[in-house]
Amino acid sequence: MNTHPTYPSCTSHRVYRHGKLFPTIRVPFREVILSPKGTSDQFHVLGNTITLYDTSGPWGDPELTPSIERGLPPIRLPWIERRQNTEEYNGIIPSNNSSIRKHQAPRKPRRKRHGTAITQLAYAKRGIITEEMEFVAIRENLGYEELLEHLARNNYIPPYGRFHRGTSFTSQLPRVYTPEFVRDEIAKGQAIIPSNINHPEAEPMIIGKNFLVKINANIGNSPLASSIEEEVEKMLWAVLWGADTVMDLSTGENIHETREWILRNSPVPIGTVPLYQALEKVGGQPEDLTWDVYRETLIEQAEQGVDYFTIHAGVLLRYIPLTERRLCGIVSRGGSIMAKWCLAHHEENFLYTHFDEICEILQTYDICISLGDGLRPGSIADANDEAQFAELATLGELTKRAWDHDVQVMIEGPGHIPMHLIQENMERETRTCFEAPFYTLGPLVTDIAAGYDHIASAIGAAMIAWYGCSMLCYVTPKEHLGLPTKEDVKAGVIAHKIAAHAADVAKGHPAAQLWDYAMSCARSEFRWNDQFNLALDPLTARTYHDTTLPHDTAKVAHFCSMCGPKFCAMNISDQVRSHTYAHSLTEYETLKHGLIEHDERLNNASTDQYIHQTKGAL
Amino acid sequence: MNTHPTYPSCTSHRVYRHGKLFPTIRVPFREVILSPKGTSDQFHVLGNTITLYDTSGPWGDPELTPSIERGLPPIRLPWIERRQNTEEYNGIIPSNNSSIRKHQAPRKPRRKRHGTAITQLAYAKRGIITEEMEFVAIRENLGYEELLEHLARNNYIPPYGRFHRGTSFTSQLPRVYTPEFVRDEIAKGQAIIPSNINHPEAEPMIIGKNFLVKINANIGNSPLASSIEEEVEKMLWAVLWGADTVMDLSTGENIHETREWILRNSPVPIGTVPLYQALEKVGGQPEDLTWDVYRETLIEQAEQGVDYFTIHAGVLLRYIPLTERRLCGIVSRGGSIMAKWCLAHHEENFLYTHFDEICEILQTYDICISLGDGLRPGSIADANDEAQFAELATLGELTKRAWDHDVQVMIEGPGHIPMHLIQENMERETRTCFEAPFYTLGPLVTDIAAGYDHIASAIGAAMIAWYGCSMLCYVTPKEHLGLPTKEDVKAGVIAHKIAAHAADVAKGHPAAQLWDYAMSCARSEFRWNDQFNLALDPLTARTYHDTTLPHDTAKVAHFCSMCGPKFCAMNISDQVRSHTYAHSLTEYETLKHGLIEHDERLNNASTDQYIHQTKGAL
Repeated sequence: MNTHPTYPSCTSHRVYRHGKLFPTIRVPFREVILSPKGTSDQFHVLGNTITLYDTSGPWGDPELTPSIERGLPPIRLPWIERRQNTEEYNGIIPSNNSSIRKHQAPRKPRRKRHGTAITQLAYAKRGIITEEMEFVAIRENLGYEELLEHLARNNYIPPYGRFHRGTSFTSQLPRVYTPEFVRDEIAKGQAIIPSNINHPEAEPMIIGKNFLVKINANIGNSPLASSIEEEVEKMLWAVLWGADTVMDLSTGENIHETREWILRNSPVPIGTVPLYQALEKVGGQPEDLTWDVYRETLIEQAEQGVDYFTIHAGVLLRYIPLTERRLCGIVSRGGSIMAKWCLAHHEENFLYTHFDEICEILQTYDICISLGDGLRPGSIADANDEAQFAELATLGELTKRAWDHDVQVMIEGPGHIPMHLIQENMERETRTCFEAPFYTLGPLVTDIAAGYDHIASAIGAAMIAWYGCSMLCYVTPKEHLGLPTKEDVKAGVIAHKIAAHAADVAKGHPAAQLWDYAMSCARSEFRWNDQFNLALDPLTARTYHDTTLPHDTAKVAHFCSMCGPKFCAMNISDQVRSHTYAHSLTEYETLKHGLIEHDERLNNASTDQYIHQTKGAL
Repeated sequence: MNTHPTYPSCTSHRVYRHGKLFPTIRVPFREVILSPKGTSDQFHVLGNTITLYDTSGPWGDPELTPSIERGLPPIRLPWIERRQNTEEYNGIIPSNNSSIRKHQAPRKPRRKRHGTAITQLAYAKRGIITEEMEFVAIRENLGYEELLEHLARNNYIPPYGRFHRGTSFTSQLPRVYTPEFVRDEIAKGQAIIPSNINHPEAEPMIIGKNFLVKINANIGNSPLASSIEEEVEKMLWAVLWGADTVMDLSTGENIHETREWILRNSPVPIGTVPLYQALEKVGGQPEDLTWDVYRETLIEQAEQGVDYFTIHAGVLLRYIPLTERRLCGIVSRGGSIMAKWCLAHHEENFLYTHFDEICEILQTYDICISLGDGLRPGSIADANDEAQFAELATLGELTKRAWDHDVQVMIEGPGHIPMHLIQENMERETRTCFEAPFYTLGPLVTDIAAGYDHIASAIGAAMIAWYGCSMLCYVTPKEHLGLPTKEDVKAGVIAHKIAAHAADVAKGHPAAQLWDYAMSCARSEFRWNDQFNLALDPLTARTYHDTTLPHDTAKVAHFCSMCGPKFCAMNISDQVRSHTYAHSLTEYETLKHGLIEHDERLNNASTDQYIHQTKGAL
C-alpha cells in the first residue's frame, strides 16, 4: 500500500494559516509557487503564489510521516475536551476489537454528557463560534481575506480581464467569509459541518449553498470485489485528488473492520448508509430487519466516528405504489430495501416511525443526517415524478424535526435528470426543505453514457451546483457496470472537481476565480511549468505536453505542439499587444474609450473614418 | 493503417432507409438488435430494434469494402449531374497532382454554370426540395416517422416512464421532420447542409437549432507532429465514434495532399480555415498575406471539395484595441493573424473588404461560410466582453450579405465562458445574427482543467446546445497542451456526443429520448448485452463490466459487481413490483389515483389511515 501519497508536482507545497479567535487552529492549503518569469501586472493581483484548497490532510504534508497502522493524529480532540461536555464510556463494541487498534493508543468512544447540547447546530443557535467554524471560514477564503477585500473595493477589475460577480438562483455569497457568517449559516440550517466527536482525525469542512461547492467520493467493497487495503487506498486516493467527504458503502465482508481503518486514516468526514450493515446482520433479508438491529448499528457506527448517516426515512408505505409506472422503479439500494420491508409487513417505514429516537442518537455524537432519496429517479424517463416529489415533501417535514433535536441536516437528491428539469429540482428542494443543503448524485443528464457516466454526471452536477446545490456525489466511469478501481475513483473525483469549481466560478466566488486567473496568466505568458502546477492533475498535464515536446527548453517556448511556433495565436497576440503599445497606446486608449461610450459609433463608424482618425497614432 | 474500422459490438449492423421523393436515396443507420429476453411492455413502444444515427459512412458498412487508396464512392454525383447546372473544368491545380488520384478514376473539378444558382439555400428559397433535403429529413427522424407520430398522438406517455417535451429558449422542434420542414429552415437561414459539389463522397447532414445537435472534430497536423496517414486515421476514427463534420486544421507540411486524402475518404463534410494554407504560401509572415494569395487558396480548396470555410472577416481594425485589456488577448489563430495584418498595414481586414468576392467564389461550389470568431475569449476573465460582441455584430452584418449571394452561413462562437454567461452568448447570437446556426468551441466553463478540458468543454457545450447552439466543436484532453492523438480524438468525440445528446433530450427530441428509453429498459431488465450494445462505446462498457464479472452467465445475472446480488436495488425493486402486482394491484391503483387527484390527502393522510384502507388489498 502506498502509505504516503504526495502531489506529483515539485513546486507546490503545504502551508498552514492560523486562527485569530483560536490561534492553535492550523488550516492546510496547497501553495503553488509561480515561476518568477512573468513580468506582467498579474503579480499585483496575485503575488507570486497561489493557494489552493487541500483535502489531503496529513497525507499531503511532506513534513509529516503518517502511517496507516497508526492512523492520523486526533487534531480535534483538544477542542472537544476543552468544551467539557462529553465523556468517555464503554461502547457496545470494545474499542480494541479492531486490528488497527492494536497499533494505536487506546481510545474509548465519547458521547455528550447528559443535559448538554454538543452539535455545531446547537452551538450556532446559542451564538457560540467553535474552532470548527473559524477553521472553515479560513478554509473557504483560501487564506485570501485581504485580497478579497481589495478586489471587492476595486469592483473586481484587475489589470487585465475581470472577475465575475456571478449569479445564482438560490445562493448569495458573502464578500469575505467570517466565523460569524459561518455560525449564522449553520444556525439557519443552511450549512453543516459534519464532525462526529469520535472522528477527531477529520479536518472541519462545511457544506452549504453559500460556500464552495463540495464533492463526495463513494468507496466500499461489495460481496464480489475488493479488500480492506484496496478500500483504504481508494480513500487516500480520493482525498489526494480533492474529495471533500468520502462515503464508505461497503456491503461485503468485514464491514466494521473496513470502516475502522478508513475512519482512523481519513482527514475528511466519512458518511455511511447504516442500513447496509444492518441488513448484513439479518442475513440479507430486508423483511427480517428490525428497529433494534438498526438502532444497535447506528450506535456501533456512531462510536466508531462516522460523520454523517444516510437515512431513508422518507420512503413511506403510501408512496411505494407511485413507483410502479416508472421505467426503472426504485434504484436506491436503501430505498428498495425499505420498500420491501414496508410491503412485507404492510407497516410504515420504521426509520420514519422511530425518527425522533434516531435524532437523539445523532445529537449524542454530533452526527449529521443526510436524508436519503430512496425514491430518486433511475432514468431520465422517471425524473421529477410524483414519487420523487412526494418523498421530498416528507424530507422537508423530517428536516424540521431533526432541527428541533439540534441535528444538522442535508437532503439527498437524484440521480438521472434531463437538463431542462434540473433547476426545478433545486428550487423545489430549497422551498420544501427550508434551504437545508442539497447533496445530489450527479445528476446524469442522459442514460446512454455507460463507460463515461462521470462525464454525463459532471454536466448535470455543474448545473445543479450553479443553481445552488451544496455537495455533489461523484459518479465514476464504472457506474452501472461495476465496482470502481482506484483509477476510476480519480477519474470520478476530477470530473466532479471540474463541475464544482465551474459552479463556484459561475456563482461569483472570487477566491475560486483567482485560480482560473492565475492559470490564464500563465498561459498567456507561456509559463508552462506554472500551467502544469496549477492544473487539477499536474502529472497528467505535464505528461500530455511532454508527449510531443519533452525537452526542458519547451517549458519556456512561446508555443506548443498543438499549433507549432508559426501559428500560435497567443504568440501573435503578444506581438499585437507590443505593436500597439509601441505605437502610442494612449491615442488608442482615448479612441477606445470614446468608442465604448458611444456604442453606436463603434458599430457604425466606417473604417475609413477610423483609419483617418488614428493615422497620427501609428 | 486500419482500413476498415467497424463497431466492436456484434449485434449492431448497418441498415438503410430509402427516400420517397427520391427513391434512390439510401440513408444509413446503425441498428441495434435487442435481445428477445425482455417481456415487459417496452416492446410495444420500441419494437425489438433501436436505430441510431450513424456518421461512419461506407466505413461502417460491413457489406462494403472501401479502401483508402480508392477513396469513397461519389454518392451525390448522380444528384448533382441530374440538375445539369454545373460543369467540369480545368482547375488551378491539376486533379491528378495528388498521390491518391493515381488510384482513382480521373475527375475534374466542377463549378456552377454561368447564370445558375446551385446552393441548397438557392434551391430552398425557390421552393425546391433537393435529394440532400430529403436525406437529412429521414436521417433526423432516425427512421422513426410512424413511431414519432404515434408518440405525439399519445401525449408521449409509453407504458412506463414518460418522454419529455423538453424546453429550449431559441428553438422549436417539429413533431416529425419532413423534407418541406428542412427546405423551409434552410430558406430562412436557420439551417445549412454543407455540401460542396466537389465532395460528392459526403452523406448529407444538417446543422440548425431545430435539428439534432451536431459535433465537429478538429484534426490536422502541425509543423511539429503527425503525418498524412495519422491524420486520415484520425478522421476515420472521428466519424466512427460519431463526428458529424471534421475540420482539417493542418498547418504543417503537405497541406494540400493531406486534405486530398481526407476529402476522398470522408463520409462527412470537411471544413478548413483557408487562411492557414495562405499563410504557409507566404512563408508564415502574416504581414505578407495578400488578397490574391488568399483568393487562389480559396479556389484551390473549393475545387478539392472543402464543404465549409472558416473566414475571420469580422476582425475589424477598430476592434483590435478592445482586446488589449484582456487577460489572454486574441486566442484564435485566424484572428491573431488578421489582427497582425491589419496593424502592420493599418488597413481594414481584407477578408471584410473582399467579402462579396469571397461569397461569389463560395456560391460557385455551394460551400458554406462559417464566420470565424477571431476575437473569442481565451479565458473566462475575458468572456462576453466588448471585443467579442463587437465582432459578433459585424458577423451579423456579413450574414445578411452572404445570404444575398445565396451562400449558407453559420456563426462561430467561443471558447471560454463561465456558466452564468453562456445563455447571454446564445441569445445575442440569435438576435444579432438573425438565427443563423451557432457553432461553438465548447465552451470551457473553467480554465483550470488542463488534461481534462474535454470535460470542462462538455459541460459548457451541453448547456449552450440546450439553449439552442447547433453544432459543438469538440475539445480533446490535449487542449492547451499538444496535438491530439487518435485516442484523444475518440475521448473528445465521445464527451461531446454526450453533451449533444443530452441537449437533444432536454430540447424534447423524441427520437433522441428513445435511445435513453431503450437503455433504461435494458437496465431495468438486466439485459447486459443490450446495455453494452446501446452504449456510446460498446467495447468500453463491456470491458468495464467484464473486469469483475467476465463469465457469460453474468450477462443475464440480476446484479453487477457494483452492489453484488443482495444489494441490487433494481433487483429488489423488481420484487417490490411483483409483490404489489401479486397483491391486488387494482386496489393499489385505485387508491393511488385517488391520492394523486387529492394531493393534500397524499401528504397529509396518516399512515394508519392508509394501512387501514389498503388492508383488504394485501
